Amino acid sequence: MTNWESRFSDRAQLMRRSAIREILKLTAQPDVISFAGGLPAPEFFPVERIQEATETVLSERGREALQYSTTEGMPELRQYIANWMGAGEMSISPDNILITSGSQQALDLIAKVLLNDGDTVVVEEPTYLGMLTIWKPYGLHFDAVPTDRDGLIVEELEPLLQRNPKAMYSIPNFQNPQGVTLSHQRREQLVKLLVKYGVPFVEDDPYGEMRYEGEFVPSVLRMEAAYRGSTGIDGSVIYCGTFSKVLTPGLRIGWVAAPDALMEKLVQCKQASDLHTSTINQFVTYEMVRDEAFFRGHIQKLRQEYRARRDLMLKLIEENFPAEVTWTHPEGGLFLMVTLPTSLDAGELLKQAVEQKVAYVPCNDFFIQDGVRNTLRINFSNARPEMIEAGIVRLGNIFKEALVAAPVK
Amino acid sequence: MTNWESRFSDRAQLMRRSAIREILKLTAQPDVISFAGGLPAPEFFPVERIQEATETVLSERGREALQYSTTEGMPELRQYIANWMGAGEMSISPDNILITSGSQQALDLIAKVLLNDGDTVVVEEPTYLGMLTIWKPYGLHFDAVPTDRDGLIVEELEPLLQRNPKAMYSIPNFQNPQGVTLSHQRREQLVKLLVKYGVPFVEDDPYGEMRYEGEFVPSVLRMEAAYRGSTGIDGSVIYCGTFSKVLTPGLRIGWVAAPDALMEKLVQCKQASDLHTSTINQFVTYEMVRDEAFFRGHIQKLRQEYRARRDLMLKLIEENFPAEVTWTHPEGGLFLMVTLPTSLDAGELLKQAVEQKVAYVPCNDFFIQDGVRNTLRINFSNARPEMIEAGIVRLGNIFKEALVAAPVK
Repeated sequence: MTNWESRFSDRAQLMRRSAIREILKLTAQPDVISFAGGLPAPEFFPVERIQEATETVLSERGREALQYSTTEGMPELRQYIANWMGAGEMSISPDNILITSGSQQALDLIAKVLLNDGDTVVVEEPTYLGMLTIWKPYGLHFDAVPTDRDGLIVEELEPLLQRNPKAMYSIPNFQNPQGVTLSHQRREQLVKLLVKYGVPFVEDDPYGEMRYEGEFVPSVLRMEAAYRGSTGIDGSVIYCGTFSKVLTPGLRIGWVAAPDALMEKLVQCKQASDLHTSTINQFVTYEMVRDEAFFRGHIQKLRQEYRARRDLMLKLIEENFPAEVTWTHPEGGLFLMVTLPTSLDAGELLKQAVEQKVAYVPCNDFFIQDGVRNTLRINFSNARPEMIEAGIVRLGNIFKEALVAAPVK
Repeated sequence: MTNWESRFSDRAQLMRRSAIREILKLTAQPDVISFAGGLPAPEFFPVERIQEATETVLSERGREALQYSTTEGMPELRQYIANWMGAGEMSISPDNILITSGSQQALDLIAKVLLNDGDTVVVEEPTYLGMLTIWKPYGLHFDAVPTDRDGLIVEELEPLLQRNPKAMYSIPNFQNPQGVTLSHQRREQLVKLLVKYGVPFVEDDPYGEMRYEGEFVPSVLRMEAAYRGSTGIDGSVIYCGTFSKVLTPGLRIGWVAAPDALMEKLVQCKQASDLHTSTINQFVTYEMVRDEAFFRGHIQKLRQEYRARRDLMLKLIEENFPAEVTWTHPEGGLFLMVTLPTSLDAGELLKQAVEQKVAYVPCNDFFIQDGVRNTLRINFSNARPEMIEAGIVRLGNIFKEALVAAPVK
């Protein structure tokens, strides 16, 4: 008999199932109101437009769309992304764009190419659990920068960069799990440090288009290039994007934008990982995004609908959560984070919540430091308004009762 | 400025672009007759059936098909694959099937989960270059087993297994690059050794359904289970399959079948690599394969068409290649391997061939030993009959002329 456990690689020993995805399984029953996932609302998926786009692709370029293709991805889609990211202010080459199977794969490729066992990576505190799940098996040490309502506190960053970490990771827009956005002023400070230290900065931007209020802030990529007087991708920023939130996640089309020297290795790594991303899904995505009237209109519609859900959720939280509880006010994205009094444990309360058919994600695993047990992430994009109302009322009651049993000291 | 090269990980230093895919780029001009790729014939892609299947999926289960889904894959597709692989002789649980983004990804996941820097892996000589491209960055040592027209020579295997390698890799059916098939008798010998030593055996089977002559031989997986008196996936064999050859590669739907303990780690690893394989592509694939009349008929059609191309190519090679050249006679698959006299260098002759608008893949990189310069791989599935004729005649002339210049001593 083969003793599998004894044969696992060192990195396999460090792998774990994502805590979130395991919670999602528990909450998959249709009668559970789940604020746990990061799912877009399926009722807004452009199903008919995808049907039309598939027909067009298969009738016009079917054989090409179903064949093996280049690792880098569909040239037209890469050109579209380059123009979209440049937004008239940068002149990005499609050679600096690699299509990936969702932006999750981009994070894995970056780790494979840059990170050795024992390397240090700087992250926000709290940071995105999905990234930690991918990167932890690479045997890394994480240094955390504290955050507030304007994102990571740049003043606290420089001492960490002075230790020459291998890379830095951040979600500047509508961060997961907090929903906070790095302010324009802080981006300016950050960019100076990035140029000074040359540390690779992974800008993960899955939610950037989903802004519901406040002013647009340029990407760190764009601000870093502008600070150097460049209009291309040739600095220290690696940018990860995705169509999962603006179209649908099921197509699994994301991308990574990186400087030439790194791109060459990312392409080699992608080639070895899965040859290339689904050809037809790239063609169908391109067919939809090049239809500017549709794509712009669809994003506008999503912004309206998600803004309404966010507003409803914030109003209901205000009305139903006890006064000892605080929460973030996201200007966009899919999530907000709730902080309970430290006398309460969000993980313990989740058990009660699931019994009452409502779910969220406790945030302790999003923190680098141990023992933060009083925060939780709530998604506001997926549940319909009547479910948001019922779920938040139930959570409010659970928190109130728990506070009676364990009052703030 | 960021000095990227100095920041690459150890494994990135070992990464290379696939030599084959670079040759494919050179031969992408439409006037080149390419026997270099491993491409199915696009004129046989079931474009209309895919169109129908997509319509059905999007109209009946569109929102589900476009949403995030479980890492393991679509339950119905996993059940279908379990039944298909079992073929009435095994009782495979869908829990032992993980859907991957092509079988290339399965190889990468297996490497991530099992292989440490410095580990030894036993392979056939020559072996599949795509596997070497994926696995070499893991810092492995490869031990090679010689092969003949019946596949790997099992007598030569036992001394290598006695050294307790971390894993073994093989394509038993219509091997890439040789096209040879491991005989039934040798599979029986192999299975005894696998049970005796418990070494994980990766059975890569992308071409198994593409048999054009001779008798069906059961998979090593099935024979190993039968030898142990089991009907489930609980031995030392890990099986990799794909729909790329029987449907289309552009959907990127493959799978890996593995015992429980390993499956748990493969799922964790897949989750970290890209969350899950495209939901809609899994749904569309299932919609097609559950239509038994279509799927069986389509495979039958492919067998007929590819058999005709193989037969034509063998006939033309016989008529046009000089007497000093030998080649394999594949019973199925997509490739045959040609051996030139050792006075000729297949890599050098490729330059002349490309000038004359015909291409193949020199096999030196498929060998573990250095310096094998006189073999080449020819694909017979992709080019149309008139192109096969023109291309083989040209190659025959190139080889004849080269032999005049560098005769066999």
